[in-house]
Amino acid sequence: MTKIHPVVLCGGSGTRLWPRSRAHNPKPFLPLVEESTLFECTLRRCADAGRFAPPMVVTGVGHRGHVEAQAAAFPGTQVIVEPMAKNTAPAIALAAYRLPADAVMLVCPSDHHIADPTSFAEAASAAARLAAEDWLVSFGIEPTAPETGFGYIRRGAPVDGGFQVEQFVEKPDLATAERFLGEGNYSWNGGIFVFRAGAFLEELARHRPEMAEAVRRAVEQGREEGAAFHPDAGAFSQIEGESVDYAVMENTVRAAVVPVSMGWSDIGNWHALRDARPGDANGNRTRGRVELVDCRNVLAETDGPRISVIGLEDVAIVVDGDEVLVTTMAGAQRVGKLSGAVNQ
Amino acid sequence: MTKIHPVVLCGGSGTRLWPRSRAHNPKPFLPLVEESTLFECTLRRCADAGRFAPPMVVTGVGHRGHVEAQAAAFPGTQVIVEPMAKNTAPAIALAAYRLPADAVMLVCPSDHHIADPTSFAEAASAAARLAAEDWLVSFGIEPTAPETGFGYIRRGAPVDGGFQVEQFVEKPDLATAERFLGEGNYSWNGGIFVFRAGAFLEELARHRPEMAEAVRRAVEQGREEGAAFHPDAGAFSQIEGESVDYAVMENTVRAAVVPVSMGWSDIGNWHALRDARPGDANGNRTRGRVELVDCRNVLAETDGPRISVIGLEDVAIVVDGDEVLVTTMAGAQRVGKLSGAVNQ
Repeated sequence: MTKIHPVVLCGGSGTRLWPRSRAHNPKPFLPLVEESTLFECTLRRCADAGRFAPPMVVTGVGHRGHVEAQAAAFPGTQVIVEPMAKNTAPAIALAAYRLPADAVMLVCPSDHHIADPTSFAEAASAAARLAAEDWLVSFGIEPTAPETGFGYIRRGAPVDGGFQVEQFVEKPDLATAERFLGEGNYSWNGGIFVFRAGAFLEELARHRPEMAEAVRRAVEQGREEGAAFHPDAGAFSQIEGESVDYAVMENTVRAAVVPVSMGWSDIGNWHALRDARPGDANGNRTRGRVELVDCRNVLAETDGPRISVIGLEDVAIVVDGDEVLVTTMAGAQRVGKLSGAVNQ
Repeated sequence: MTKIHPVVLCGGSGTRLWPRSRAHNPKPFLPLVEESTLFECTLRRCADAGRFAPPMVVTGVGHRGHVEAQAAAFPGTQVIVEPMAKNTAPAIALAAYRLPADAVMLVCPSDHHIADPTSFAEAASAAARLAAEDWLVSFGIEPTAPETGFGYIRRGAPVDGGFQVEQFVEKPDLATAERFLGEGNYSWNGGIFVFRAGAFLEELARHRPEMAEAVRRAVEQGREEGAAFHPDAGAFSQIEGESVDYAVMENTVRAAVVPVSMGWSDIGNWHALRDARPGDANGNRTRGRVELVDCRNVLAETDGPRISVIGLEDVAIVVDGDEVLVTTMAGAQRVGKLSGAVNQ
């Protein structure tokens, strides 16, 4: 078995973990769940040299400093510096053009948490076997709740170590999500993909020929700078940005899915982050100087001032510099709309 | 009618409004409800020169600076600086010995809020008429809820403009407090008293002769310093501290009560403070940079950092320097037991 090439996408920041996540220091580069950052954990999951080649990170100019600082502990890391963000399909295509056509790529977001890296690695190997047969494989995350914030993947006929994809389903409403969980043959689409570089580029050229051609030129006319590669900005700027789901996965007839249960979370908001951290006997999660009295399932963290809390349940309290956030878990998904998050 | 002599007691700080109220800057000297501090408002309520003589403030060494700074706008204010705190009976006795025997004293705490100062002044005049007949008069605050944190006064037979006191009742349990409200002849004891200085000292000498004698000597051997008076520390230190309720009011047969409804609050904790402030359409009270989303009856105030809140109800959030407090209204009475409040 040849080694799997990790391709780590390190793009937009998001605002739903404000005020801890800020425009200048966004989510992937913060130690949100463990002592390491989400980006460092992503690299570490792919650090087994028996299974993985050194990683390739696709990032933007603004994040390059964070990427290079945190990737320093992972020898052989290559960085592709996008001149501008064009969503995931062009980002993946850049990496695909930089790899041999037969290289099997494992495309990973850099801002998710995976509690069980062993299951992750085993799923990567299973997906790589399918990819070697020119399947374009999605990880199918085992759903644990009727989430309406994720896309779903409906499984079809079994193929070696996985299933054909019968349908990619956009974010459902709650009733539909509950039905999906009841039927049992749906997974969450976690944005983790495995395919041969050449197979991906063939499908991209079939369904998005202009994008494929523009990325090809951006790479051809790009320049090396040590371990960094700069695609040509003029060529890359012509691309109409699009997600890999829309551009390729929903169009190809070679889509497969490998179901996996690995304690996955997209850490999409403070509610999700609380649930990803281990709690004490009362379900509380604290960081920094915090005193809790008669609290349950409270997340409280501070980068300086002491937080003292009495009598609360299912609330997140975050102190970061000149910002103090207090939200119910139910309200956590609206954090990104707060003035402080919007006007960064 | 001779003028009433306000005697403002400005003593201990308390910890239940921590972290805004601190040992070095306690509750009376903070603008908690209005733009003026509670102490300034106390002086202003007694500033009508047609009704009141200039005030006499009894305070401790630690608070003297605050007192003199905030009393500067009230000409003629005299200050008695207690060498140590001995509770309210000796404090009042100090003022009584410094006044003519026929002076009618109005004894007021300096850390309460009174929304209706006109009713306060009218009650003071009614009480002063009784005091001129040598009654020792308590203001009887009209109870608006079955509070278990206050003492109650049971009314007896009517006397001119008020009632004899039938009984002073210590803090009741909830069932008893509810019964008191139902019966309708109980008032809260708000610690506001009106009596002739000479009448008070006679009753003190009758029921606490050693205390009366020690205070007399402390005044006799004290020294003037401008508008300040320093009782003799040696004599004063011999006193066994005791409240005016225990030492005098519960023992005298000349206790009377003047019922009054004047929007009184002892601002005893963040719950009481929230209720004393006017709210917006959703019942929220904010000070400083605060953004509230889908909140009701929330008190949020900050001396610097922005507070952003989503989805909370009946919660107080207070940012002060290096402390952040978040408490339910029900938990507000336990604020004084937090580590930050205890270890100041």
